[in-house]
Amino acid sequence: MQFFMNLLQKSIRPDLTRNFSILTTIMKQKSDGSNHKRISILGATGSIGTQALEIVAGKRESYHIVGLTGHSNWKKLSALANEFQPEWLILTDESNRSQFEDSLSYSPKQIDYSADALREMSKDSETDLILNALVGFAGFSSTFEALKAGNKVALANKESLVVGGELLTSIPGFYEQLIPVDSEHSAMWQCLVGENMGSIEKIVITASGGPFREYSKDKMRSITVEDALNHPNWEMGNKITIDSSTMMNKGLEIIEAHWLFNIDIELIEPVIHPQSIIHSIIEFKDGSSKAQLGPPDMKVPIIYALSYPNRHTLNVPRLDYQKRMSLTFEPVDFDKFPCVQIAIDAVKEGGIKPAVMNAANEVAVERFLNKEIRYIDIPVLIEKAINNFNQTDITSPDVLFEIDKETRIFAKTLLK
Amino acid sequence: MQFFMNLLQKSIRPDLTRNFSILTTIMKQKSDGSNHKRISILGATGSIGTQALEIVAGKRESYHIVGLTGHSNWKKLSALANEFQPEWLILTDESNRSQFEDSLSYSPKQIDYSADALREMSKDSETDLILNALVGFAGFSSTFEALKAGNKVALANKESLVVGGELLTSIPGFYEQLIPVDSEHSAMWQCLVGENMGSIEKIVITASGGPFREYSKDKMRSITVEDALNHPNWEMGNKITIDSSTMMNKGLEIIEAHWLFNIDIELIEPVIHPQSIIHSIIEFKDGSSKAQLGPPDMKVPIIYALSYPNRHTLNVPRLDYQKRMSLTFEPVDFDKFPCVQIAIDAVKEGGIKPAVMNAANEVAVERFLNKEIRYIDIPVLIEKAINNFNQTDITSPDVLFEIDKETRIFAKTLLK
Repeated sequence: MQFFMNLLQKSIRPDLTRNFSILTTIMKQKSDGSNHKRISILGATGSIGTQALEIVAGKRESYHIVGLTGHSNWKKLSALANEFQPEWLILTDESNRSQFEDSLSYSPKQIDYSADALREMSKDSETDLILNALVGFAGFSSTFEALKAGNKVALANKESLVVGGELLTSIPGFYEQLIPVDSEHSAMWQCLVGENMGSIEKIVITASGGPFREYSKDKMRSITVEDALNHPNWEMGNKITIDSSTMMNKGLEIIEAHWLFNIDIELIEPVIHPQSIIHSIIEFKDGSSKAQLGPPDMKVPIIYALSYPNRHTLNVPRLDYQKRMSLTFEPVDFDKFPCVQIAIDAVKEGGIKPAVMNAANEVAVERFLNKEIRYIDIPVLIEKAINNFNQTDITSPDVLFEIDKETRIFAKTLLK
Repeated sequence: MQFFMNLLQKSIRPDLTRNFSILTTIMKQKSDGSNHKRISILGATGSIGTQALEIVAGKRESYHIVGLTGHSNWKKLSALANEFQPEWLILTDESNRSQFEDSLSYSPKQIDYSADALREMSKDSETDLILNALVGFAGFSSTFEALKAGNKVALANKESLVVGGELLTSIPGFYEQLIPVDSEHSAMWQCLVGENMGSIEKIVITASGGPFREYSKDKMRSITVEDALNHPNWEMGNKITIDSSTMMNKGLEIIEAHWLFNIDIELIEPVIHPQSIIHSIIEFKDGSSKAQLGPPDMKVPIIYALSYPNRHTLNVPRLDYQKRMSLTFEPVDFDKFPCVQIAIDAVKEGGIKPAVMNAANEVAVERFLNKEIRYIDIPVLIEKAINNFNQTDITSPDVLFEIDKETRIFAKTLLK
């Protein structure tokens, strides 16, 4: 149907004036006339980064990796670099610098070892898409710099929006440049393609409910690290797996959706859907709803963010409608999972509160994983931190960095 | 998000040169500068027509009814006409002409009593949208003439495409001018807005399974008219309710989807979904699927077809995610419901076979409702008719009218 194609082929990104980049001179290979999408992956050694590179490995005709970054896993970054030979490599933990460089089988045009370099890579004007798969608030600066420089960002770092949503959405071009990678937000995005944002009545964000959905409140008192790392549906990193079990992850995602689609937080309804087949639902004001669905597999939202506004063929399992299948839905138990309401309340209060909440949660999860605090202490610690800091306006990223730092220091002292 | 709105606001219909209309002179009220969408409803007294008018009654600021037609229910047509005061009225059964005219409380600009007039109304150049809610193959000519005249058609008459898909899709502008009203095809359409048709991997068309989903083959031998008219989820006219119970309706819809989206019939998979919440699913080649869902209510696809490419607020029940809900899926039993395969095979054979199948089905349903044949004779009669006629190419609508007529005569003689 030609008009669908016409709609699609309309450029979705204005020709923004890009800021300078230190790599402008050495990365101008785009002028060779190739049709590759030039991608940098921040956090290449993590779960999202690795899966993105598995996709790229099978689509060399469509994508070219121009930059890869890792933090401490130098062996994995080296192996990925040798396979994809990006022009630019960043290892933010410098302690294994010489071993890392010795392990490379090719000569990258640039190797860096600093967080500053991450920001420079995010600003590079010769990159078509920055996949930000950094973990935690550490990923914010890259998102901020990339958007300010006019770059497109595929965002897997939800803390960028949770903590800095107010700053990020004030950047001109935010809505044109950022595409989500989270499965729920990718689902919402896919359901909204071709729709008018004014037609949205409600967003229904689905949640598996995690491993403790059927636990009693009493049984939750004795949850171990091993219990919490055992997610029923998704294979993910440790931080997000714990967040998923406490449902703080859903709280963070509600905030993310709020900023991403500029929608009132009250119009985002979390619902338990244990099978994780329907990844989210948009309800429109005419009573019609659209859902995005499929077997849980992060490669689907990743390739969507990479290929958008097109779709590329991907060999992942499909739903089998020739087998009997049941998709169930039930309300969220806010009493058993207090983190959901904590997150909603934090974004309603605004200002620094989401930043405090996020930092406190990162510390709480880390301390739980280190067996310093109990599982049920996680929300307690977060609430104590939120109540400890007075409200302040976010006038610049520095305010966020400062409150993030202060919260972490404070949160480490709690419940000793 | 501005770019979504940009996508949407792009006109989807080329400025086609329209054919003449006998009403050009008397219906030029559009030049009064109003923003009403000017709608004619063919089959206004039926279930779809009535629901469309209920919607219009609540949206007088958006829609203006320029034409209404009915067949024999002159009292209902008169009541609707008095309420909406369309300029043009058509009652195709003339037998109550004087009573009909006496019952009108206003003076329409034109009243007609012929099938020719239906075709003229379909061609009217001052109408923005023709809602074709005629029942059976009788609706084909109006769809054909409307599309040829460059008019937009909201199609609730599935037989138009089932019988005449080859002819209709050969009309330039078919894909720009026609929007489906069937709930399943509206679901597909909604899931495809903003997508590239080349990204489709498969269409999953859902079916409630009707009232006999759990009947044994043996129990199906004694189904009565009353049993078959008792559909579990949808309130519909008699013909479509019986078609739904035999699943011939799903066969017809598979053919309809085949023509509407220009997709191989083998890539359309029917699936039983007894709750009728998910109205259909598009699976894309990247492994992602999109579904349209909501409580079964024909007003939702009707208002979508009327308001497209916008969405208008509609007060119908929403899904309640705060209640436990289960959506189940199971394979179609082709052995128990042979009509599905009969329809698929007919469109694969092409030529006149779908026309024969459709006419034979219309006769079989009528004869079952008249208690002339048993329920299980419906597919038997259709297959006998299909095998009776030699294949012929469809060179013009006349070939379809001829074979339709011949099939009806023949089908009335079967199984006496």
